[in-house]
Amino acid sequence: MAKNIASRESNFSQWYLDVIKAAQLADYAPVRGCMVVRPNGYGIWENIQSAFDRAFKETGHVNAYFPLLIPNSFMEREAQHVEGFAPECAVVTHAGGEELEEPYVIRPTSETVIGHMYSQWVQSWRDLPILINQWCSVVRWEKRPRLFLRTSEFLWQEGHTAHATREEAIAETFRMLDVYQRIMNDHLALPVLYGEKSENERFPGADNTYSCEAMMGDRKALQAGTSHFLGQNFARAFDISFQNRNGETEFAWTTSWGVSTRLIGAIIMTHSDDDGLVLPPRIAPVKAAVIPISKDEDRIRDALEPAADGIARGLNETLGGVCAQVDRQYHMRPADRFFTHLQRGVPIRIELGEREHEERAVTVVRRDTAERDRVPLGSLNDHVRALLADIQRNLYDRAKAFRDDNTREVSSRTELKEFFAKDSRGGFAKACFAGSSDDERDIKDITGGATIRCMPLDDETRGKCICTGAPDARRAIFAKAY
Amino acid sequence: MAKNIASRESNFSQWYLDVIKAAQLADYAPVRGCMVVRPNGYGIWENIQSAFDRAFKETGHVNAYFPLLIPNSFMEREAQHVEGFAPECAVVTHAGGEELEEPYVIRPTSETVIGHMYSQWVQSWRDLPILINQWCSVVRWEKRPRLFLRTSEFLWQEGHTAHATREEAIAETFRMLDVYQRIMNDHLALPVLYGEKSENERFPGADNTYSCEAMMGDRKALQAGTSHFLGQNFARAFDISFQNRNGETEFAWTTSWGVSTRLIGAIIMTHSDDDGLVLPPRIAPVKAAVIPISKDEDRIRDALEPAADGIARGLNETLGGVCAQVDRQYHMRPADRFFTHLQRGVPIRIELGEREHEERAVTVVRRDTAERDRVPLGSLNDHVRALLADIQRNLYDRAKAFRDDNTREVSSRTELKEFFAKDSRGGFAKACFAGSSDDERDIKDITGGATIRCMPLDDETRGKCICTGAPDARRAIFAKAY
Repeated sequence: MAKNIASRESNFSQWYLDVIKAAQLADYAPVRGCMVVRPNGYGIWENIQSAFDRAFKETGHVNAYFPLLIPNSFMEREAQHVEGFAPECAVVTHAGGEELEEPYVIRPTSETVIGHMYSQWVQSWRDLPILINQWCSVVRWEKRPRLFLRTSEFLWQEGHTAHATREEAIAETFRMLDVYQRIMNDHLALPVLYGEKSENERFPGADNTYSCEAMMGDRKALQAGTSHFLGQNFARAFDISFQNRNGETEFAWTTSWGVSTRLIGAIIMTHSDDDGLVLPPRIAPVKAAVIPISKDEDRIRDALEPAADGIARGLNETLGGVCAQVDRQYHMRPADRFFTHLQRGVPIRIELGEREHEERAVTVVRRDTAERDRVPLGSLNDHVRALLADIQRNLYDRAKAFRDDNTREVSSRTELKEFFAKDSRGGFAKACFAGSSDDERDIKDITGGATIRCMPLDDETRGKCICTGAPDARRAIFAKAY
Repeated sequence: MAKNIASRESNFSQWYLDVIKAAQLADYAPVRGCMVVRPNGYGIWENIQSAFDRAFKETGHVNAYFPLLIPNSFMEREAQHVEGFAPECAVVTHAGGEELEEPYVIRPTSETVIGHMYSQWVQSWRDLPILINQWCSVVRWEKRPRLFLRTSEFLWQEGHTAHATREEAIAETFRMLDVYQRIMNDHLALPVLYGEKSENERFPGADNTYSCEAMMGDRKALQAGTSHFLGQNFARAFDISFQNRNGETEFAWTTSWGVSTRLIGAIIMTHSDDDGLVLPPRIAPVKAAVIPISKDEDRIRDALEPAADGIARGLNETLGGVCAQVDRQYHMRPADRFFTHLQRGVPIRIELGEREHEERAVTVVRRDTAERDRVPLGSLNDHVRALLADIQRNLYDRAKAFRDDNTREVSSRTELKEFFAKDSRGGFAKACFAGSSDDERDIKDITGGATIRCMPLDDETRGKCICTGAPDARRAIFAKAY
């Protein structure tokens, strides 16, 4: 076990911070609750962005940029929206050396200002749908910050679409939920449940909210992404209206959906171990570290480092992009050099010592299982490609098995209470539920914080509600959550 | 000439706004001086980003993200810096429902907060160099906003590096200036002069500032990018110190460099014409529009649209990325359909009518010269590839010829005054100069606003100063500027 990292089992929350620090992913900023995303963390974010951005474009979306500042009066136009966000807003009162006539808030989310622009861009049904996404940062003032999970500023994308019909907007809401769960599964190796949120957990101003929910290593849930059907609420508030094919004026139907740097927190808490960060190969900035080792400086310079450079070049050409890096930390002992890559979550370590060099082979070590293989140089590229795919699959399978092991069906309020009791392991509880918001609050009280994470869309099970006893209640997932 | 676009020759500034509006590149936001970058504009920015980002990474830089908010006290630590930026800052005084103890400013640039973080990350010479870039938006309150050129918020990248020696930091300053001018030339088709700024025009807090300067269609200069050698000014202010190889403590040497969405303004004002936007193919989001044309709806559906889809697919496979798009605006007349692509600056229009379809050919029209060619389908992909390269080259050559035609050597203060007189054409004046800041101000006065844009690094000419008469004065470029 690494000395600079607390035990995951005994102190999960300290372990989480230690992993981030050891991997140099992020630091707290000198501004309350804000973070600095360091290059190792930002490289992960770039890969996450590129996977999602490609999928957004494949589904017909385009990117745009809306202003950071929003007039305070805009926030107030949608009653639930302002109620939900006003307490978290940062407010600009002065600019250019003068007090502003009307204060601006820094966007906590952009439905309002985007709604205002859409009202100008939409006149006819021919102007619809509008399918726009924005990559930016948002500010929501946070009293109890936690790196990547809750910070006063975070990076995200927010999709905002407007449609001519209710059906089309609902289809879009589901389409993006599907894109989210697919990228999370395939690229981030996060097995996520996806489903509808209860009324209590809806986005302020939405008719319906859907989310992807992942189980973290401490068996708590993390909401990994949300997709909102906004009905005509924002269209009415900002007058996004259009002439339909029959020449009648109608309000548009809108959606919004987002994922954030929170996903980096999800990756850490799902895959990492007591040695530090473990990254799914598809989103790892460096996929393989090539490490030339010799005590003889001349040999390093003349033979081993050039050989390592050749190996890295071969891998980069085969695998595309800069994904293999040569380690040149010769002032450190080999074990310490290995350790830096281990702690940064590099999926594959390739050791090239004197003996390997002589035998035209390398030692390949995988980060997820620590298995070692001697691999001849001639087959290295193919070996690494297959190994990366295998690590990706293994991380997903391991996370899914962990989630399944920690998910239980529960058929009464009492059982649910026991499942979340202090001395029990907890996890995800599946239970049928058709109660009210009050019933949800009751459950939160008796379980010490468990809430409905979502009602999975792919679970057709219906049964007796654990609170009201009503028949045909939908299946819900209860968990304590980040 | 387009009815919705003013004449470039007779009203350049209205023409500029009309081109932006017709191409749907950007709108003013409901926040004073801020803009909304619409998808057509943002697509250009994405291509600009990707060209620069690749070059930054090839030169060893990595991306990171620093907070949007900066404690006011940080700004005050570097005297010139605060003097330069404080008047333009937007100030956050309240957050989370409370008044803040210390106000924050929204970053106008990030030297201060990044300097603070570097001081924590740097202990030893082994921690250097740090080569970090950030893509983000910045806020500088603007009294006279102008889309893309001067807005209260704009998108940019800011590189911030720290080095162990003065020489290394200076080399980095020049390296990035070189990257800038290369990408501007090769991708944006902007022939730029690059050189040193005079003291008057230096970045607040820099020892030296270098810039790339382009000539716009109205013969005024636009500063397209800057690279600053910051000496040890910020290292002292934020205590970025390290132990050198001899165990002595030293301050680091830092640089910063940036380009912004201003470049979109530069592209518009360099290449576009009275019909609207003209884009260099390398940064055009859509490189070719394929337009099936027939009065017969059945023929469109059964024959022409499928053929157009096939053509677009073929081009996308050959040219890489989504670059060809099929036009489906069948409710419009063909001429109007052509016009939408013309105004959006799509480099190549491919018309597929009944006769072309019969002959297994298309009509290819280039945006920059309006030349038309009948091209057999069999050779279309090669034709388009060659044509895109030719358009790219032509735009550069045309801009360079325009700049050269409007650049004159000037050998006295009087000649300079005449060159910029009200009834003269103006442009770039090359003159030897070794005067003081007062002399610069004098020239600004007598010319109605001309300033030293830069002292080109690749111009070895030395001569008599037009102000002081001193010999061996360096060559400077004088121009009125945006």
